[in-house]
Amino acid sequence: MSRVIRVTIWNEFRHEKKTDHPASEVYPEGMHNAIAAHLRKQPDMKVRTATLDEPEHGLTDAVLAETDVMTWWGHIAHAEVSDEIVDKVHKKVLDGMGLIVLHSGHFSKIFRRLMGTTCDLKWREAGEKERLWVVDPSHPITEGLPEYFELPQAEMYGERFDIPQPDELLLISWFQGGEVFRSGCCWRRGRGRVFYFRPGHESYPIYKDGNVLKVIENGIRWAAPLNTPAPVFGNYQPLEKL
Amino acid sequence: MSRVIRVTIWNEFRHEKKTDHPASEVYPEGMHNAIAAHLRKQPDMKVRTATLDEPEHGLTDAVLAETDVMTWWGHIAHAEVSDEIVDKVHKKVLDGMGLIVLHSGHFSKIFRRLMGTTCDLKWREAGEKERLWVVDPSHPITEGLPEYFELPQAEMYGERFDIPQPDELLLISWFQGGEVFRSGCCWRRGRGRVFYFRPGHESYPIYKDGNVLKVIENGIRWAAPLNTPAPVFGNYQPLEKL
Amino acid sequence: MSRVIRVTIWNEFRHEKKTDHPASEVYPEGMHNAIAAHLRKQPDMKVRTATLDEPEHGLTDAVLAETDVMTWWGHIAHAEVSDEIVDKVHKKVLDGMGLIVLHSGHFSKIFRRLMGTTCDLKWREAGEKERLWVVDPSHPITEGLPEYFELPQAEMYGERFDIPQPDELLLISWFQGGEVFRSGCCWRRGRGRVFYFRPGHESYPIYKDGNVLKVIENGIRWAAPLNTPAPVFGNYQPLEKL
Amino acid sequence: MSRVIRVTIWNEFRHEKKTDHPASEVYPEGMHNAIAAHLRKQPDMKVRTATLDEPEHGLTDAVLAETDVMTWWGHIAHAEVSDEIVDKVHKKVLDGMGLIVLHSGHFSKIFRRLMGTTCDLKWREAGEKERLWVVDPSHPITEGLPEYFELPQAEMYGERFDIPQPDELLLISWFQGGEVFRSGCCWRRGRGRVFYFRPGHESYPIYKDGNVLKVIENGIRWAAPLNTPAPVFGNYQPLEKL
Repeated sequence: MSRVIRVTIWNEFRHEKKTDHPASEVYPEGMHNAIAAHLRKQPDMKVRTATLDEPEHGLTDAVLAETDVMTWWGHIAHAEVSDEIVDKVHKKVLDGMGLIVLHSGHFSKIFRRLMGTTCDLKWREAGEKERLWVVDPSHPITEGLPEYFELPQAEMYGERFDIPQPDELLLISWFQGGEVFRSGCCWRRGRGRVFYFRPGHESYPIYKDGNVLKVIENGIRWAAPLNTPAPVFGNYQPLEKL
Repeated sequence: MSRVIRVTIWNEFRHEKKTDHPASEVYPEGMHNAIAAHLRKQPDMKVRTATLDEPEHGLTDAVLAETDVMTWWGHIAHAEVSDEIVDKVHKKVLDGMGLIVLHSGHFSKIFRRLMGTTCDLKWREAGEKERLWVVDPSHPITEGLPEYFELPQAEMYGERFDIPQPDELLLISWFQGGEVFRSGCCWRRGRGRVFYFRPGHESYPIYKDGNVLKVIENGIRWAAPLNTPAPVFGNYQPLEKL
Repeated sequence: MSRVIRVTIWNEFRHEKKTDHPASEVYPEGMHNAIAAHLRKQPDMKVRTATLDEPEHGLTDAVLAETDVMTWWGHIAHAEVSDEIVDKVHKKVLDGMGLIVLHSGHFSKIFRRLMGTTCDLKWREAGEKERLWVVDPSHPITEGLPEYFELPQAEMYGERFDIPQPDELLLISWFQGGEVFRSGCCWRRGRGRVFYFRPGHESYPIYKDGNVLKVIENGIRWAAPLNTPAPVFGNYQPLEKL
Repeated sequence: MSRVIRVTIWNEFRHEKKTDHPASEVYPEGMHNAIAAHLRKQPDMKVRTATLDEPEHGLTDAVLAETDVMTWWGHIAHAEVSDEIVDKVHKKVLDGMGLIVLHSGHFSKIFRRLMGTTCDLKWREAGEKERLWVVDPSHPITEGLPEYFELPQAEMYGERFDIPQPDELLLISWFQGGEVFRSGCCWRRGRGRVFYFRPGHESYPIYKDGNVLKVIENGIRWAAPLNTPAPVFGNYQPLEKL
């Protein structure tokens, strides 16, 4: 009950470092630090950050060993993430680590590997309105949310979103331009749990919105690993007389 | 985090009162008190019991108002449960109360109403061995369990179990006589969560088994209500200009 | 392969008979006959209709015995459908009959009984635009559809739709007024299959729209009963020596 | 309705060519030809075979272009399947080709890629009895089956089977030695459908069993591609005025 969740917030952190990119004004410290600022207020969370350009992308074996839940934001540099690190993160998820995939992370190597599909979608950058509706109010990730919440300016993501049918579908977005999107989706993979959450364009202050931060916070609690049975694989002796 | 879950253990409590029935020896205080004895050791639970032959089956409006999660065991007297009480329990579940349905509770009015199917199955009382396998080690209800556990003497329940496909299937039973059964199944209904757990025949000391009690304890924590958004229904004004 | 599907189109048929109701102009022969006109063009379907005010609501034992798939439209007179008939239709679905629930049929006795929830939702009659997006292009019910289709004037239905999580979610609606809705949902109950399809307000010519009719036609093919194994229930002899 | 399904039966075809391996006696022409012999009796199927040691593993672009559904059996040479061919088969599935994965194909590159998990399991070669129970008699893949069927001698596969929760779980196996297994599992990936079917050890005449062949035949019909909408991805113009 009183266990502390060790969170690693991973961010590509490229847009924000370009002084001519709007992200550098919205998130001068990077999106990871905006998210971290909120999570550090949670008494049950211990937060660190990691970014692409650190050695091993900041995801050393030591960091991975001390991570219960990882959040993932990437966009223009998915291909620069080394396959070796993706292998390690994949294995960690199957062993029970939670993974929260944010916005353009839909195209990350790790998410596509876990899904088995292209994870493609429609998109448009027009600063239009998005309204997210809770469609499953039985789920812990919806705790403390209103029935819907709005983002005044968002990038549009539209269906068809090429993902496996979610184990649990929590949020559906309405966009001003006429599209819809499954914006909050849960899957279980191995002993781990994966949550995809749509909002998060780098040029709008999405990660300063209270409802968005609440969903990420809830997602981390939901995805935190548990002391569940570790499966035994391989050749196996009969339990009954043959 | 530190909230206390108010649990009401409901039991038909008829078998145990018949002095010529084996249940009266196995559970002289009733199955509800065997379960309660375990749950009362949990610091995050506050436990009461209720039985069929109490006024309003022990489920007065006051009791319902103070119940977060209810467990349900019934067998020979499902028809004696009043429809009015079933209506109230049904409404409570849809409003967020957790419900743990045990063993022969598969044929209870409340479970069949929530499922929409007959909930019928095969059965046999031969005191045979049952082995329950965890098939989803990502789920909180499997916390602290071994990969499988056995009950040396159990009533057999066999497929086809006429239920809607579970939202989450956690346990599959192997029976000595050659059958299998989906023994741990989760569904969401309204804002509430429902867990069906198979073990529990009245003539064997099933509710004194540590693994069985652990599953019930975990199920209660998983099904505990949350502060999720209460849906608004009915006629609704547009949020955008038409 | 070449089997003919026997379809019974059930309609409340009250709005259309009121000469001062717009439905009487849009559907002078009733909505059932608009749907039937399309289905009768299908070489693999044999179509009949049945309505509330016929004896036994047109659903005699003989009609039920000859029905493979039933469609259901009701609105103002759900309470007038006799429980005895609902019991029979329920049993038929569990025995394998397909059921296509249309629009305001969401509040019918039969749909609520099969779902176990209130099936409540938001609604608004403002003649606004609806756009239905296909979110699962692997499903036979989406055969022959475009990626999305529009209804220029529709009644709005908005989430939260209080249903069990669909086994398969096919369509999500966008509404001009700012809401979204899970508009094409599949469930399995017993040996039967149930499809809920949202469009269909009585005052707009929804059942003359080619895409809407195509979805109904596809739904009927998907829900048609198959020669699947009939479960054996009850006391059962062991298959292995105990 | 009258369309013909073009089936490609892919087989590793190594065991059967070793004259000292029991498979060479059970399947002198290879398992693919045992399966093909049954499918060629189906008037709605057109069958070809392909094997690992053919050029491009028999899966040239021309063959892929003419394949509606592929079945996959591999065991000792998964690593020899070229990544380039796996890429092509993967893309075909997402574009709508059906895939039936048989027995030890659980460890094939293509299945693991589609699942995103290890697909590991327990196993034992002891020639023990397997009994497969139908748990979802609403599904077309169960058509024509009895409620359960038995294989007198089978390799055991036991849970935990490390797969994503199936979209549809059809069959659960009981093994003499005390294990259970989810033996018939369906998933949707992209516009394609994937069916895993457990039976099939190379040293027992599993693919001469009528029920096993019936399941494969049904699986192929269920997985056959349909004329569903091809999703549009990428940058997208608004459908409504912004």
